[in-house]
Amino acid sequence: MIAEKMYELGTRKSTIRTIFEFGRQRAAVVGEENIFDFSLGNPNVPTPDFVRDAAIDILQTMEPSAIHGYTVAPGNPTVRQTVAQSINERFGTDFSAKNLFITAGAAAAITISFKALAEPDDEFIAFAPYFPEYKCFVESVGGKLVVVPAQPADFQINFDEFSKLITPHTKAVIVNSPNNPSGAVYSLDTIKKLAAILEQKAQEFGKPIFIISDEPYRELAYDVDVPYIPNHYDNTLVCYSFSKSFSLPGERIGYIVVPNKIVEFDRVYGAIAGAARVLTHVNAPSLWQLVIAKCAGRPSDISTYRKNAKLLYDGLIDAGFECVKPQGAFYLFPKALEPDDYAFCERAKKYDLLLVPGKDFGCAGHFRAAYCIKTETIERSLPLFKKLAEEYRS
Amino acid sequence: MIAEKMYELGTRKSTIRTIFEFGRQRAAVVGEENIFDFSLGNPNVPTPDFVRDAAIDILQTMEPSAIHGYTVAPGNPTVRQTVAQSINERFGTDFSAKNLFITAGAAAAITISFKALAEPDDEFIAFAPYFPEYKCFVESVGGKLVVVPAQPADFQINFDEFSKLITPHTKAVIVNSPNNPSGAVYSLDTIKKLAAILEQKAQEFGKPIFIISDEPYRELAYDVDVPYIPNHYDNTLVCYSFSKSFSLPGERIGYIVVPNKIVEFDRVYGAIAGAARVLTHVNAPSLWQLVIAKCAGRPSDISTYRKNAKLLYDGLIDAGFECVKPQGAFYLFPKALEPDDYAFCERAKKYDLLLVPGKDFGCAGHFRAAYCIKTETIERSLPLFKKLAEEYRS
Repeated sequence: MIAEKMYELGTRKSTIRTIFEFGRQRAAVVGEENIFDFSLGNPNVPTPDFVRDAAIDILQTMEPSAIHGYTVAPGNPTVRQTVAQSINERFGTDFSAKNLFITAGAAAAITISFKALAEPDDEFIAFAPYFPEYKCFVESVGGKLVVVPAQPADFQINFDEFSKLITPHTKAVIVNSPNNPSGAVYSLDTIKKLAAILEQKAQEFGKPIFIISDEPYRELAYDVDVPYIPNHYDNTLVCYSFSKSFSLPGERIGYIVVPNKIVEFDRVYGAIAGAARVLTHVNAPSLWQLVIAKCAGRPSDISTYRKNAKLLYDGLIDAGFECVKPQGAFYLFPKALEPDDYAFCERAKKYDLLLVPGKDFGCAGHFRAAYCIKTETIERSLPLFKKLAEEYRS
Repeated sequence: MIAEKMYELGTRKSTIRTIFEFGRQRAAVVGEENIFDFSLGNPNVPTPDFVRDAAIDILQTMEPSAIHGYTVAPGNPTVRQTVAQSINERFGTDFSAKNLFITAGAAAAITISFKALAEPDDEFIAFAPYFPEYKCFVESVGGKLVVVPAQPADFQINFDEFSKLITPHTKAVIVNSPNNPSGAVYSLDTIKKLAAILEQKAQEFGKPIFIISDEPYRELAYDVDVPYIPNHYDNTLVCYSFSKSFSLPGERIGYIVVPNKIVEFDRVYGAIAGAARVLTHVNAPSLWQLVIAKCAGRPSDISTYRKNAKLLYDGLIDAGFECVKPQGAFYLFPKALEPDDYAFCERAKKYDLLLVPGKDFGCAGHFRAAYCIKTETIERSLPLFKKLAEEYRS
């Protein structure tokens, strides 16, 4: 009667959602301030004033039809040109309006990219730990998600395993750096090595292999460079979002970059336009297109995330946890204190510490703690992490 | 290397687009004021002041995180409740937040509905003349679009042909009233007859058949009632948009209604949630969710469209055209003056009258004239329509 698969995807509750709802119930019993909810990746830094001011200024001064009218499918050409120039200034690239396709955030951008590229039997490679929605997005376009096991020492790429998993069916590799959930940033060495392997394999198989760079966390990096992948590998699609950089997750605004050097630019860009059309993702929200053009190049305020990262990391290390040092995004991904990360997160609930099992990200034995929450909540959580760790030692 | 079908969909130029671009080129030569562009269905009534004021008020008074944060996938529950109440007041329905899924406009709403319902070998029926994107949306979810020939006398439903085309494969029937491109509004009689046939066929086949009511033009009706289909047929999904009613086409905001009386409500709503997830259409733009709640129930200003409809209709009749009287939307769909509507529209170009051939809407021998343009442009076009008609008589 209906599409069973859609019903299943629409009703199966995610682990994160279940944990979040448990937190809401507990908050009603013990009080909001006694719940330490590290489950959700929702930016808690307020939207910058310059974003609000830009939106109000546009609404007060521009003709309504110029604000709210249809734009062409890939987005307002002037907006695309402005954003392209701002990318060029930062990364020394050569983009113009024609290289950008504005989208409703990064999730739409990656799904459009998958749909544009996917042919029958295609495989898309992700590196664990990875954002779990990749699987459902890739499968929805008829592709298969192939997962490279994690390299828990530093959460860079496990190249030995990766090399074994590239096949003539590999259409693209998904890179997500700064990474959700590990907080790692792929180093220049990692990116160069990745590019070299892909170039060699592409030559061997006589077909291009793409990188889809999923970059919603690009601006959230602490004292490390985040290499701009098109500068190191030609066949790259960049999927960007303003959700985290400007704390606008609900507004759905981002873009895809199709670099000039990509193989057969016109065909790739055309396929992206077609995928956006059938996914009904043409013409991203028009007011927000204008706002991002007005705010292009303005910096993100990452001071709170930086402070929180250090506070939580130091606290967990002090409590005896093992954890890779955070470099970006707003997540820590420490080792759980027992092999079964589900059991560990269940035990943490006793202290109202709400954590997400690593298994959901393809990396069992770890847990994710999102620190985009009040600094004070993190401070008050540290003695509880300590107690939890002591439980395991006694 | 890429998905060929996506490339084809992303690069094949639509007739409307080609005509529009021809108009831009001509305007550069003969001047903007000498081009009579009836090709585009872009609202030309300005966005109401109360919409702008609502947006500015929200931006100035609410916490940024409450405006721009993620909403739950189907949209802000308070917004859904408010919009549901406003529907109830108008149509005597019994909806609440749980019946609504907020979407990025009507195109997303219908695509999500197709994806939620489509099983292998499913057929979706449309009545000519119809919105051409239906075909690509239906095919993109693996369905087949079946087209019922038009009934040019009044552009109501051709029930004889319809009855022959319903089969056990029919999953749903798409209703678009007020209609693009005919400007007709389906009468209460038409809707009741449609409902009776579907009920009988559903019983005969032992399976539900849905109506997907695509209603972006609901508020644009001139002195006729637009029956609210869920009041006449239980298995209806309503796909609504604020693009035309509030002149906000670029902002992508609308909703799907899943009525309580639909067969297996939970399963249908669940499938819609799953379809929205894989099409990355969860969480419609959050500022606009708040704006539509603030403006729910406010009237659309249709006075300009009403005036234009009468002016163009009277002028065309006077020039000797045959045309069904406009009842809604912002289109006329007259008979072309020769059987080949492409040849007719080509000939009209000599006068810089830009019209769209009916064949593109599944109804050859007609043409579409969108009158959502300046009244003065219509006035100045009438002598040209007259000359064109005289050409055919001489």
